[in-house]
Amino acid sequence: MTQKLRPGDMIGVLGSGQLGRMIAMAAARLGLRTHIYCPDPGPAFDVCAQFTVAAYDDEEALAAFADSVGVVSYEFENVPAKTAAFLAARRPVRPGARALATSQDRFAEKTFLNGIGVATAPFAAVDSIDDLRAAVEQLGRPSILKTRRMGYDGKGQILIRETQDLGEAFQAVGCAPSILEGFVPFAREVSVIGARGLDGSFAAYDVCENEHEDHILAHTMVPARVSEAAALAATDMAGHIAAELDYVGVITVEMFLVEDGMEQRIVVNEIAPRVHNSGHWTLDGAVTSQFEQHVRAICGWPLGSPRRHGRIEMRNLIGAQGNDWERLLSQPGLCLHLYGKHEARPRRKMGHWTKVTPEG
Amino acid sequence: MTQKLRPGDMIGVLGSGQLGRMIAMAAARLGLRTHIYCPDPGPAFDVCAQFTVAAYDDEEALAAFADSVGVVSYEFENVPAKTAAFLAARRPVRPGARALATSQDRFAEKTFLNGIGVATAPFAAVDSIDDLRAAVEQLGRPSILKTRRMGYDGKGQILIRETQDLGEAFQAVGCAPSILEGFVPFAREVSVIGARGLDGSFAAYDVCENEHEDHILAHTMVPARVSEAAALAATDMAGHIAAELDYVGVITVEMFLVEDGMEQRIVVNEIAPRVHNSGHWTLDGAVTSQFEQHVRAICGWPLGSPRRHGRIEMRNLIGAQGNDWERLLSQPGLCLHLYGKHEARPRRKMGHWTKVTPEG
Repeated sequence: MTQKLRPGDMIGVLGSGQLGRMIAMAAARLGLRTHIYCPDPGPAFDVCAQFTVAAYDDEEALAAFADSVGVVSYEFENVPAKTAAFLAARRPVRPGARALATSQDRFAEKTFLNGIGVATAPFAAVDSIDDLRAAVEQLGRPSILKTRRMGYDGKGQILIRETQDLGEAFQAVGCAPSILEGFVPFAREVSVIGARGLDGSFAAYDVCENEHEDHILAHTMVPARVSEAAALAATDMAGHIAAELDYVGVITVEMFLVEDGMEQRIVVNEIAPRVHNSGHWTLDGAVTSQFEQHVRAICGWPLGSPRRHGRIEMRNLIGAQGNDWERLLSQPGLCLHLYGKHEARPRRKMGHWTKVTPEG
Repeated sequence: MTQKLRPGDMIGVLGSGQLGRMIAMAAARLGLRTHIYCPDPGPAFDVCAQFTVAAYDDEEALAAFADSVGVVSYEFENVPAKTAAFLAARRPVRPGARALATSQDRFAEKTFLNGIGVATAPFAAVDSIDDLRAAVEQLGRPSILKTRRMGYDGKGQILIRETQDLGEAFQAVGCAPSILEGFVPFAREVSVIGARGLDGSFAAYDVCENEHEDHILAHTMVPARVSEAAALAATDMAGHIAAELDYVGVITVEMFLVEDGMEQRIVVNEIAPRVHNSGHWTLDGAVTSQFEQHVRAICGWPLGSPRRHGRIEMRNLIGAQGNDWERLLSQPGLCLHLYGKHEARPRRKMGHWTKVTPEG
């Protein structure tokens, strides 16, 4: 199995959304071609050299896909384990099975993190209504009940307030295997986007400060309003996590910044084993974009410089906000990105813009 | 005929080389799709939503191409006039027929420039060996004999030195309709890359300083080593030329900087009615790339900011220099671009790199 790719080679990406699209464009910049595999056509299909529309359990299609590429990656963490294993028997899958398994299950993820000395919210597994009652007894209210698997953008979770009936709460998450997370009184949400190369090298962008609206990322600012010590701790933590997962590619670690008096402390919320919305600013505001960084890593190439060009503001365009493109195009110094989605459905990510302001 | 496009619309581009490729990627960033039309498959095919392989005089294919797009543009100035006219009857062709006709013929180009008060090298039409003798008598030696049409990267031109036999020189350009250009004792070669919108607005990048090797661009530095007055004059000149051509899109004006004692003076060498190699640095070093700027202009959208992120160095990778990709990937802070060409033929542009150094 080839470990390193060469220009002209094909990379494989599972998923046809905007992340796959931006990975494919970054690959093209470096003279690579991209094969997108997805059960549904999506915006990535418009910019790739090849695409396959097939189910994630279609072994014939998966085998042909694997044959056509030098490495397999993905734009979303919920790749079925069986799909990943089938592909990994044929081509390197980067990031690997351990990163996928860990990030797909909130319980496994938090257990792993605590196991390597990384702080998380307190948590307890919830497999039944009795578990839930015991967990709420232990962790108190408010706390958050989340399904262990397949949750994103606020899906599969419910806040357990003082008045919340626990039976209804467990129904609300479909009585699925879940975890209860104790409430973290955070001052801000931040993320570290780093990359780990095949040779174990690690490079991270400056810490991003994120604001969510309705559980969806709305706004990112870089640098984050964190102390130098907290920024260093956050970045070291991401590097430590990546090393422990024997990770190859871009990794995103979402974190809470907790302020205890003068002290700032980092609590990890979750890991995304992929490029991330809070790193979209790197397309316009950094020497190397997160997408190129990911491509470099999965190809076994040296990582690029994560240096910023200035102070960063990034804003997502959700649903009907994408219709505002004409006004946004005329804003001085604003870099607009639209994802080529045909329909501006509510809560759908239609695009984003970045503004880079020279520093100093 | 629609004047303005909307996200989701298709733009048409004639030519499948690296410039078409980078235009297609810039269009995709803005949610547009690209249809590439070319007699030969090329690197642009890997990143476009649709492509057509057909001759430039295949009217059936051209009509279908026009039907599929909202606007037609091109990556090279030698689009046959008949092709442009056929397409222009169906869809807006931007830049338009006047820009093409002017830039395709060195005699027409210099006559146009002098006519609007822009200095060029002295020149004379050469249609016969007798014309050539008379022209050399008038303009002296050294001077340069160039075919009126289809010359680029030093093709179709010969230097008339003291010892050059004129009969052989005229043979060397195939006895084609040509012009003789008087020698300009320039200090440096510079270019202005500007864009003119459908509304007549004009925006230019800072003046680029260019070094050629073997008649092919090797190296661009921004800002150019020119006086503030000369830079302003050069930029004004490009805006004036674009306005006189009723131009829509990115225009490149290649110029000589002549030093007369303390004075710096601009002499225009030629116009390229398109994005240009000396503007490739804008992909990494400017708020808006020349490719996005071109797409914005041809779509009837507002122009973006041409602000630089720092001091720029860009170097082309010609022929076997492209094989050096692995070493270049590991240079700190260097942005590498490879064009996805399979074979590193001599004099072939395989890629480029840009380095952006923070200023001040």
